[in-house]
Amino acid sequence: MSDLVLRSDTGAVARLMLNSPANYNALSREMIAALEDQLTRIADDSEIRAVILAAEGKAFSAGHDLRQMQASRGDEDDGRAAYQDLFGDCARMMQMIPALPQPVIAEVQGIATAAGCQLVASCDLAVAAESVRFGVNGVNIGLFCSTPMVALSRAIPPRAAFEMLVTGDFILSDRARELGLVNRVVPADQLPDATMDLAQKIAAKLPAAVRMGKRAFHDQIRLGLADAYQQAGGTMCENMMLPDTAEGIAAFLEKRSPNWG
Amino acid sequence: MSDLVLRSDTGAVARLMLNSPANYNALSREMIAALEDQLTRIADDSEIRAVILAAEGKAFSAGHDLRQMQASRGDEDDGRAAYQDLFGDCARMMQMIPALPQPVIAEVQGIATAAGCQLVASCDLAVAAESVRFGVNGVNIGLFCSTPMVALSRAIPPRAAFEMLVTGDFILSDRARELGLVNRVVPADQLPDATMDLAQKIAAKLPAAVRMGKRAFHDQIRLGLADAYQQAGGTMCENMMLPDTAEGIAAFLEKRSPNWG
Amino acid sequence: MSDLVLRSDTGAVARLMLNSPANYNALSREMIAALEDQLTRIADDSEIRAVILAAEGKAFSAGHDLRQMQASRGDEDDGRAAYQDLFGDCARMMQMIPALPQPVIAEVQGIATAAGCQLVASCDLAVAAESVRFGVNGVNIGLFCSTPMVALSRAIPPRAAFEMLVTGDFILSDRARELGLVNRVVPADQLPDATMDLAQKIAAKLPAAVRMGKRAFHDQIRLGLADAYQQAGGTMCENMMLPDTAEGIAAFLEKRSPNWG
Repeated sequence: MSDLVLRSDTGAVARLMLNSPANYNALSREMIAALEDQLTRIADDSEIRAVILAAEGKAFSAGHDLRQMQASRGDEDDGRAAYQDLFGDCARMMQMIPALPQPVIAEVQGIATAAGCQLVASCDLAVAAESVRFGVNGVNIGLFCSTPMVALSRAIPPRAAFEMLVTGDFILSDRARELGLVNRVVPADQLPDATMDLAQKIAAKLPAAVRMGKRAFHDQIRLGLADAYQQAGGTMCENMMLPDTAEGIAAFLEKRSPNWG
Repeated sequence: MSDLVLRSDTGAVARLMLNSPANYNALSREMIAALEDQLTRIADDSEIRAVILAAEGKAFSAGHDLRQMQASRGDEDDGRAAYQDLFGDCARMMQMIPALPQPVIAEVQGIATAAGCQLVASCDLAVAAESVRFGVNGVNIGLFCSTPMVALSRAIPPRAAFEMLVTGDFILSDRARELGLVNRVVPADQLPDATMDLAQKIAAKLPAAVRMGKRAFHDQIRLGLADAYQQAGGTMCENMMLPDTAEGIAAFLEKRSPNWG
Repeated sequence: MSDLVLRSDTGAVARLMLNSPANYNALSREMIAALEDQLTRIADDSEIRAVILAAEGKAFSAGHDLRQMQASRGDEDDGRAAYQDLFGDCARMMQMIPALPQPVIAEVQGIATAAGCQLVASCDLAVAAESVRFGVNGVNIGLFCSTPMVALSRAIPPRAAFEMLVTGDFILSDRARELGLVNRVVPADQLPDATMDLAQKIAAKLPAAVRMGKRAFHDQIRLGLADAYQQAGGTMCENMMLPDTAEGIAAFLEKRSPNWG
């Protein structure tokens, strides 16, 4: 198995760490494949209740591997097929995160740019160290961040997203929280602990309820009101039928802790 | 008529008050029916131009009536049909609020959790006392707030909504205003007056224009740009054809008050 | 050509200026036609890479020309056809702004109300002087701002938009930035320079990448995630195939400035 992404488990929390600090955790073809592989395994791992996506080194991720991309220009088709594959693979991996049964929290240090910023925006939640720089700055080298835009423009207000995309300017952690990209900002030396605390809090909930809820969240987010209620009502009903939910409600009414085994 | 929801009118403003403080204004089957009944009457009451939804006691509403829900587990089908009915009825009542001809303002004190938070998010506007606690905390007892999520995730940014849903954490009034759930935050002792002031301000506008506008707002909010303009343009034209609008514009141009009778 | 909208170019930046200060730059039929005419010319002008939309006088724009609109009430159909034409023409002009190949920045001074506020919300970005008043206050004269609502409710959170629409209340520049309507707020005497700086920054990017990116932004903003990625992935691929993008990336890797001629 690739060591581009390392996994360490703490109880029911899986922490994935991008492990290519020498190239700022570039999302090379190999890194994307390693992430997809790890996410696939976690999807099937019923012991895991929450996931942290962290990174080694000075950068969370600086986005695509530009050196690798330039090398494809020597292909017979000047790289077109390679780029189609790369962006297709990357988009599929990014979409695995909302589709994963468990909530995924980005733990962000240093800098997160282009597809690295997209990776943050694709997670369900994000905790950032103070003064992290976030940007979708491909426009500065002539490559507008069109795919990072998909995740970013669904996480923050549209005109703030467009400003970042067209100027290439960075925003810092506090502004990222104001805009909704980041949930919590903490001092850099508390980042791993604060992220783990959040993950453990989620892992302590009833897993089946969290899984139903995460799926329902993404299924309903872009529907009209009536369709969204139709779908969410079905989820509520299924959730109520779980024996553990019966126990959870009984325990609450009896002012005791639930016995969820 | 049920006394679970009391109505008192002040001029053209109807103030509905949830009146079950002993169980924190739980949204029992009876409470949902009483709200639906009151909203149905107001929809047909051409004298009413704005609605306040308030609550008696220490809580605005703590959500569904868990005791009543647990009792249904003794049914032949373990409660499935009862839960389907309950969530269906509740979703229908919640959707009556945006569909109501008159704007509805939540007047929120104390605490608003789960379906109680959904009720706030379903109103067109909200005024909150300082330090009200808002939460969608069903996850803490094993019941993810999937139906409250529908209203909440349309009122505040998606990642902030997901954090509340999956952690069960509360937010306070000031944060609720930052996120867009609440329009105004006032000291607790000024809450009824501040909400009534807002309602009276709306009630002083031309009622037909407000009704057209509220309907148009909800009809266009999730459409593409061209479709939204097509629909809103029709509303503008109908609005212009009202004799009272002709008078309103004439009065403005003549620097006098409109004579709207 | 009409002098209702003046154009002055600075390098690759076209600055359009609404030039009817005597009636607060009302969006009369003639003003809408003059804007449409100027936007049509700019769309075909490959030299122009960014557009500023500014205004002469104490107001950015106070919205539709009410005097002109009232005059149509004498028509055989009491104005209905004239209003249909007016709102149709205005909506078409507003939609030309996101459809324009170049990013458009509103430079906002004084006051922007009703369709004037819509014009700000229709631009891709906005810079405002301190203490500008923004409002969709037609409701005060009996004409709910249904068409301005289309642009406004896509720029700021829904409940904040509804409050402005139904109360007619103004918000000031700082609140407009908090809500996402405005990107930057600057002292009034720095407004033209600050807006030009932003426009020049955008104009210095690779024009083909900015054009692809702006189109992709608006094409994907309301799609589901999979469809949005499908579309944005195609744009990324086309962007990568541009010789200037190959040069931009090469220059970045070689730590030199791109030679984009």
